[in-house]
Amino acid sequence: MVEVGPRDGLQNEAAVVPLAAKLRLIRGLDDAGCPRIEVGSFVSPRWVPQMADTEAVVRSLPPTRARLGVLVPNTAGLDTALASGTAEIAVFAACSETFSKRNVNASIDVSIQRLEKVIGAVKAAGRFVRAYLSCVVACPYEGPIAPTVAARLGARLMAAGADELSLGDTIGRATPRDTRALLAEVGHAVPIGKLAWHGHDTYGQALVNALTALDGGVTVVDASVAGLGGCPYAPGAAGNLASEDLVFMLDGMGVRTGIDLEALARAGSDLCAALGRPSESRVARALGATDKR
Amino acid sequence: MVEVGPRDGLQNEAAVVPLAAKLRLIRGLDDAGCPRIEVGSFVSPRWVPQMADTEAVVRSLPPTRARLGVLVPNTAGLDTALASGTAEIAVFAACSETFSKRNVNASIDVSIQRLEKVIGAVKAAGRFVRAYLSCVVACPYEGPIAPTVAARLGARLMAAGADELSLGDTIGRATPRDTRALLAEVGHAVPIGKLAWHGHDTYGQALVNALTALDGGVTVVDASVAGLGGCPYAPGAAGNLASEDLVFMLDGMGVRTGIDLEALARAGSDLCAALGRPSESRVARALGATDKR
Repeated sequence: MVEVGPRDGLQNEAAVVPLAAKLRLIRGLDDAGCPRIEVGSFVSPRWVPQMADTEAVVRSLPPTRARLGVLVPNTAGLDTALASGTAEIAVFAACSETFSKRNVNASIDVSIQRLEKVIGAVKAAGRFVRAYLSCVVACPYEGPIAPTVAARLGARLMAAGADELSLGDTIGRATPRDTRALLAEVGHAVPIGKLAWHGHDTYGQALVNALTALDGGVTVVDASVAGLGGCPYAPGAAGNLASEDLVFMLDGMGVRTGIDLEALARAGSDLCAALGRPSESRVARALGATDKR
Repeated sequence: MVEVGPRDGLQNEAAVVPLAAKLRLIRGLDDAGCPRIEVGSFVSPRWVPQMADTEAVVRSLPPTRARLGVLVPNTAGLDTALASGTAEIAVFAACSETFSKRNVNASIDVSIQRLEKVIGAVKAAGRFVRAYLSCVVACPYEGPIAPTVAARLGARLMAAGADELSLGDTIGRATPRDTRALLAEVGHAVPIGKLAWHGHDTYGQALVNALTALDGGVTVVDASVAGLGGCPYAPGAAGNLASEDLVFMLDGMGVRTGIDLEALARAGSDLCAALGRPSESRVARALGATDKR
């Protein structure tokens, strides 16, 4: 499991979480045994004020057991990211022209050309590169996206040196049939062992798609504690796959994650209390309900 | 899909829903194309006041396209149920001795002996009998339950004349491995075509277990519009599998249900407005969010 709550989760929350609460969240996730945590993003604070303190986050953290990662949108944030010293650096591109233009103000092709340089620089610095592809199944502007797009773009990012490709169902519209079709297509272009699945729960399909990806041979799943990250394209809708619900399933299926579910749920509940919102994780709610009895 | 919101959903809601709101819900579900709807239960109004108006519900409904069903706990409610004229009558037993004693004040064996008489009487009246087994995977008092229990009890209920066996994960603790193991065991005793899966979303596993059941050959899944039916053993926790989220998945997978998803979500949202609570269906929330934009 790659825990993306502190980055993908919090960047989509309306409220800006204070540094102290972020550090507490990340320490809580680390204490719970999360093996990999994406802690922030070096995007422009003008566009994403929720991530403005990423440098301070990385600098303030004590040594962690977890492998930490940060996201960089382009070469602008790269030096800061490299200097921050995280083991992983992530880049992102979209499978939809409209989404790419609205999100990074460039065509898919220009955006990938830029990322090829970023990936080269990160690899030259000896770091692990995670490449995100968003809108792999559907785009909020263009509707359904053919699986061949993710296969073609994924192959380019891997050829540029990326170590891992995370396939993002950004608007949560995928059902297991889509996920199977996508993995079959992308699997021709990128080794299955290099893939991660990244789903959102907007339509309640996040866990069922994660299971489908796991059944298809994917071994890395992205999740966000407390289901942080309400979809910005549907205000009020659910966010990322909730880490607690994924770990509950994996525990029940005998898949060892090394994560302490109750400690994980506590880390999420503490953050939700700070945000003043309920947890989107069913497990966290059930455990909380049991505590209250 | 068997829509159980008006019965299993509402009987577990804290508030008692007025007759008019119930009728509106059931008409909405029927208009949306739900093929089977369980509309109430002839249990004692002393124990389940939420179901006290079941006779009035059945009497007040106009003819429906849906096949309607009612639940009867024992011979006491049987005459009223038969007189109400619904096409289906459901009975229930538990796979846990403690749950059985607390729920129907009888051992499993005594409870099944009583049901054998009820089933016989319902079949003699030419009606379809659905038999529920609860706690098929786990019991809130006893913990894990061996799949052999559901297989043995299910075989008895089918031998008594039941037409269908609905396997209920009452506290929502099953993960896909449990569901697979259960179906493998029960499948030795009862034809797979006679089984239904009935899951709760207490730990976020409802849809993933429904998919597992469908992949295993089960063709009937119980669900509750708006995810009605918060688990009484964990106040604040999620309820039944939300019908909208199931239909979204089936639509995406090309499984024709004949159900109009937007009409279904509207029926649930109307009821939630009457109850003054948010929908537990992610799809309903996402559609509502989209409407509001």
